[in-house]
Amino acid sequence: MTSGTPSLEWTDLDKKAVDTVRLLAADAVQKVGNGHPGTAMSLAPVAYLHYQRLLRHDPTDPHWAGRDRFILSCGHSSLTQYIQLYLAGYPMTLDDLKSLRTWGSQTPGHPEYNHTPGVEVTTGPLGQGVANAVGMAMAARRERGLLDPSTANGESPFDHRVYAIASDGDLQEGVSGEASSLAGVQKLGNLTLLWDDNKISIEDDTNVAFTEDVAARYAAYGWHVQTVDWTNGGTGYVEDVQALWEAYQAAEAVTDKPSFIQLRTIIAWPAPTAQGTGGSHGSALGADEIAATKELLGFDPDKSFIVDDDVIEHTRKARDRGVAEHEAWQKTFDAWATASPDGAALLERLTKRQLPDGWDADLPTYPEDAKGVATRVASGEFLSAAAPQLPELWGGSADLAGSNNTTPKGEPSFLPPEHSTAKFQGDWYGRVLHFGIREHAMGAIMNGMVQHGLTRPYGGTFLVFSDYMRPAVRLAALQELPVTYVWTHDSIGLGEDGPTHQPVEHLAALRAIPGLDVIRPADANETIAAWRTVLGHTDRPSALALSRQNLPTFPRGTDGWAPASDVAKGAYTLIDADGEPDVILVSTGSEVQIAVKAREQLAAEGISARVVSMPCREWFEQQDSSYRDSVIPPQLRARVSVEAGVAFGWRDVVGDAGRIVSLEHYGASADYETLYDKFGITADAVVAAAKDSI
Amino acid sequence: MTSGTPSLEWTDLDKKAVDTVRLLAADAVQKVGNGHPGTAMSLAPVAYLHYQRLLRHDPTDPHWAGRDRFILSCGHSSLTQYIQLYLAGYPMTLDDLKSLRTWGSQTPGHPEYNHTPGVEVTTGPLGQGVANAVGMAMAARRERGLLDPSTANGESPFDHRVYAIASDGDLQEGVSGEASSLAGVQKLGNLTLLWDDNKISIEDDTNVAFTEDVAARYAAYGWHVQTVDWTNGGTGYVEDVQALWEAYQAAEAVTDKPSFIQLRTIIAWPAPTAQGTGGSHGSALGADEIAATKELLGFDPDKSFIVDDDVIEHTRKARDRGVAEHEAWQKTFDAWATASPDGAALLERLTKRQLPDGWDADLPTYPEDAKGVATRVASGEFLSAAAPQLPELWGGSADLAGSNNTTPKGEPSFLPPEHSTAKFQGDWYGRVLHFGIREHAMGAIMNGMVQHGLTRPYGGTFLVFSDYMRPAVRLAALQELPVTYVWTHDSIGLGEDGPTHQPVEHLAALRAIPGLDVIRPADANETIAAWRTVLGHTDRPSALALSRQNLPTFPRGTDGWAPASDVAKGAYTLIDADGEPDVILVSTGSEVQIAVKAREQLAAEGISARVVSMPCREWFEQQDSSYRDSVIPPQLRARVSVEAGVAFGWRDVVGDAGRIVSLEHYGASADYETLYDKFGITADAVVAAAKDSI
Repeated sequence: MTSGTPSLEWTDLDKKAVDTVRLLAADAVQKVGNGHPGTAMSLAPVAYLHYQRLLRHDPTDPHWAGRDRFILSCGHSSLTQYIQLYLAGYPMTLDDLKSLRTWGSQTPGHPEYNHTPGVEVTTGPLGQGVANAVGMAMAARRERGLLDPSTANGESPFDHRVYAIASDGDLQEGVSGEASSLAGVQKLGNLTLLWDDNKISIEDDTNVAFTEDVAARYAAYGWHVQTVDWTNGGTGYVEDVQALWEAYQAAEAVTDKPSFIQLRTIIAWPAPTAQGTGGSHGSALGADEIAATKELLGFDPDKSFIVDDDVIEHTRKARDRGVAEHEAWQKTFDAWATASPDGAALLERLTKRQLPDGWDADLPTYPEDAKGVATRVASGEFLSAAAPQLPELWGGSADLAGSNNTTPKGEPSFLPPEHSTAKFQGDWYGRVLHFGIREHAMGAIMNGMVQHGLTRPYGGTFLVFSDYMRPAVRLAALQELPVTYVWTHDSIGLGEDGPTHQPVEHLAALRAIPGLDVIRPADANETIAAWRTVLGHTDRPSALALSRQNLPTFPRGTDGWAPASDVAKGAYTLIDADGEPDVILVSTGSEVQIAVKAREQLAAEGISARVVSMPCREWFEQQDSSYRDSVIPPQLRARVSVEAGVAFGWRDVVGDAGRIVSLEHYGASADYETLYDKFGITADAVVAAAKDSI
Repeated sequence: MTSGTPSLEWTDLDKKAVDTVRLLAADAVQKVGNGHPGTAMSLAPVAYLHYQRLLRHDPTDPHWAGRDRFILSCGHSSLTQYIQLYLAGYPMTLDDLKSLRTWGSQTPGHPEYNHTPGVEVTTGPLGQGVANAVGMAMAARRERGLLDPSTANGESPFDHRVYAIASDGDLQEGVSGEASSLAGVQKLGNLTLLWDDNKISIEDDTNVAFTEDVAARYAAYGWHVQTVDWTNGGTGYVEDVQALWEAYQAAEAVTDKPSFIQLRTIIAWPAPTAQGTGGSHGSALGADEIAATKELLGFDPDKSFIVDDDVIEHTRKARDRGVAEHEAWQKTFDAWATASPDGAALLERLTKRQLPDGWDADLPTYPEDAKGVATRVASGEFLSAAAPQLPELWGGSADLAGSNNTTPKGEPSFLPPEHSTAKFQGDWYGRVLHFGIREHAMGAIMNGMVQHGLTRPYGGTFLVFSDYMRPAVRLAALQELPVTYVWTHDSIGLGEDGPTHQPVEHLAALRAIPGLDVIRPADANETIAAWRTVLGHTDRPSALALSRQNLPTFPRGTDGWAPASDVAKGAYTLIDADGEPDVILVSTGSEVQIAVKAREQLAAEGISARVVSMPCREWFEQQDSSYRDSVIPPQLRARVSVEAGVAFGWRDVVGDAGRIVSLEHYGASADYETLYDKFGITADAVVAAAKDSI
């Protein structure tokens, strides 16, 4: 705690408002019959402090660019946020609270991004929100660097803070630890994370599974750490809001470290028998317990959803304060915009997520080349070419930059300069990201970056390790966030590292995720076209599956070879049969060359085959049926697919009469040519399958 | 460091042997042209210390039950282990080392369980090995508790230690943090983890991403922490093996905490220019650098794979020591076996992974019941019934015990008694596991438990959070480990928690994993039959997908309803059409009741439908074709599948003419009846699809 902190005005009306919050939480869960009342009750003063005192926000404009960000990582306690949105005057009514967890309501079980105004992030899967907050804090710095780098800290319209609240569960999950470690490296002074240390999770007393010294762990990560104990060491519970306020003030004063506040609480306080119990975490308290709590707090036990006029009148002043703050900010912003017309134009473009005219004029193209280029290399060349045009595009790797080719040439790292190394020059406002060997945090951090608003992050690892980040990928798809994954080493084609590193089931498993585009380019030119298409989408995450090994570059636009721009259609005839095709060979990525060879072998035997490159099934499915039928005619039932992964899902494409050349087991450690041969992913196998299918 | 530690004899010949190891590592990578030489070089004295001094092991019997366990979590440095296996006299030759990373060799890129004698665990995906080691240390305690609980610590034939070596990458991964936190809770005094702190990962200097105080973090987890600095604060590199030895002795002396040893090293030591570089991590050093290193160490620079006779003669004495230790242990063991015939019989049964005769005599059966039982509840009742018969069966949940129904009645928790809570009684040798909100560690810990040898662990969470543990699930499948996942809340049927908690793509994504059985029972009796079948398998992991909501219990063995024992076939005709079927309705889990209703509606319209319950596609695919064709006749092309998840993969079952009733988007927060209705997973939809298909 610092001395000289501005003291907090906290009147009896504030206290009554906080008690109102607790009872609304209990009533809302009781009404629907399920949900999580306990934390919403005990965190009522904390959430109220945020929305009524700490946060710079404008309830009349939830998207105000100058707002502080608030993330409720413990999304199961969604009422913690919903009730504050209601009190502060966001578009949220008492009826919405009464509709908790019902069809079509503003108040789903967990907070949902793009659904409830004022909710910045979809949370619920634990640990994610902590990492999202780290991503937001990083993005805030990057965006400031793009728009207003030279203004003193704290004086730019792009200075704001990120606040997050985490539960025990959030901090047990590895993803939060990964992200918090990185936040320490990045010295994110704009981030404050509160831990609701109530020693209760669903299995009740956390002593069975969580005995570590969490505060010491955060200190080890390099965070500024404070503890506020409302239990007074177990001697008596006092909600000392002033002490918490002071801790927040002290946190803001530390600008070179993220801040961690351990707040010791009692869950479901002050419910007479439910407080401190696991039962209050995830179940309705029951009518009797709620009535007793109301009585205890001086509320009418026979009424529900009580919000006295003086309370709502008081809390709705948050709107006036927000509007005033917004207006004051607007003046600073307008002055900046006038002084920085280029910055203002950039901001407008980034806000709309538009690409600049002509951004892709100088992208690389590749001539026919039998030896070819690895698609991961072409991806790296794309990034180097695009980076100067697209400052919003930034990213890096989970410690595999050299393998994933994620570093655009000549660009500085996003890193405190004192963490520069012989290989990487750090700049507070740099753009090359070093996630460390933390794929899961990488995914969740990128989600937070996109949610912050202006940038387009990408992150790389080996495709097999997409498994490590899968929960974050799902959340990107669910929230329609334009994150790009650069997943290289996309098959047994990586060779010697063996089965632990060779994805076999991953393309199928990723295609199963609704709202995720999975793109596996067949050569260098397809890779450039794929990136171009990906950046044209603003409403979904995209996954690039790229080869480690060189792939031949096909001739384009000559002798019947299609241009690579057809990639945007998801699938296209790369090279057609001579005359009517007898069979269609469909393939992706590194196996397209095998289909091409098989076509030649078949031709030598008088069988005419069309080769369809299908880099992205999702894009293909979005084409109209006439286009789709022109590529894969329904009446032509002789079809073969070839992909170095499981067959799962390919029957959709090849149909009953088709054949699938696939890999139904794990790989092995050897050079990749041997593996393709031993595992039968060969032109001969495709030829045999084609004959079988015809 | 403790005083009075037995001093270590470390002769010039030992030093020469260690240098031999370094050069073998460099040569092996150079020969194949790719791999990871740096860590194998600098860790040579550490690995040598393990295999020649620390470990109790018998190279002539890699499966000796009394052995200490060694896990190389940084599996990319597989040579660290292979070379020691060779020197110590395991079935590993110099030619094997020369065949590194080539087809069919004993020395794949990463260590592989069940492939190379002496390798306890497949490692490579970082962080997993740390968690596997935690699982092994837990299993060692449980197994001791089953077989020899009353003997004093250190005097039982079932006392041994678990050693693991981790790299920077292992400790950046969240899974290792999760597992290490739990190891602190569990006070695993039999576990020692060494951190090779070389400040180098693939992106070179770890200062860009890893600046935390790792030792302090481990202290915060409740570990005993020591630091040995071979760099002497950067003043000069001295491989002080004595100091490291003393640290290991001190670690063993602490019996109520796991031990963490931070060892500061320089990667690729003493290669003159490659030492301390990121390049040495994952690339061959080059002929010149290797020659220079050989010269520096007094070896002939023109020779490769140098192993002098005095070296191999010296190191192979490990065999004699191992045989002698094994013989001494055998006496203790025999004495135990004589004194504990029941224990000996149990050990024999568990070693063979056999189930006891009649173990399933009293499993629950359920009468027809329209209201029915949730399959998660039936699963819990199975566990309560089976637990007394099967002491090897143990498990718990990632903090969702009450929801996953993973706690057998009346069983104590596996937990230091001082961590007992009001809800859970702790016992050092208990069987109920509390993983905390750490799904990923749960998965990896269970792998380590199985690898330790005798027990059958299970672990629960919500199906949607299978994503959090997916890398560990894959490794269980790759290693053919009989782990069982209890994944409840298996669809939108969980209701109000909404899209973050509702699995939609997960069944498909899990079915894509080779070697994993995915089982989704349709009612209580199928659940019991599923568990019975799962426990009969010893060579694969199994995933149970169980409902939150009640499901009707079908009448069994009457009026044409099949017995639930047919579950073992993966799919079966639950209730046939009256006469020849016009259409086949295939379904899983909670949607089988919908197919049953649709069958009735169709019958009312004169259309006869067969209902096939398909709880496990993998089991069905293992049946012979005559059985499969009897259930789904190839000529009957009118088929409908219904499952509350994505269609992906169902075309295999229904064929071109079939129809798939599925869910191609995320769920929502509402009661489950509303969701099924709004999303069209209904009998009406199945009826319409059936007519469409006919």
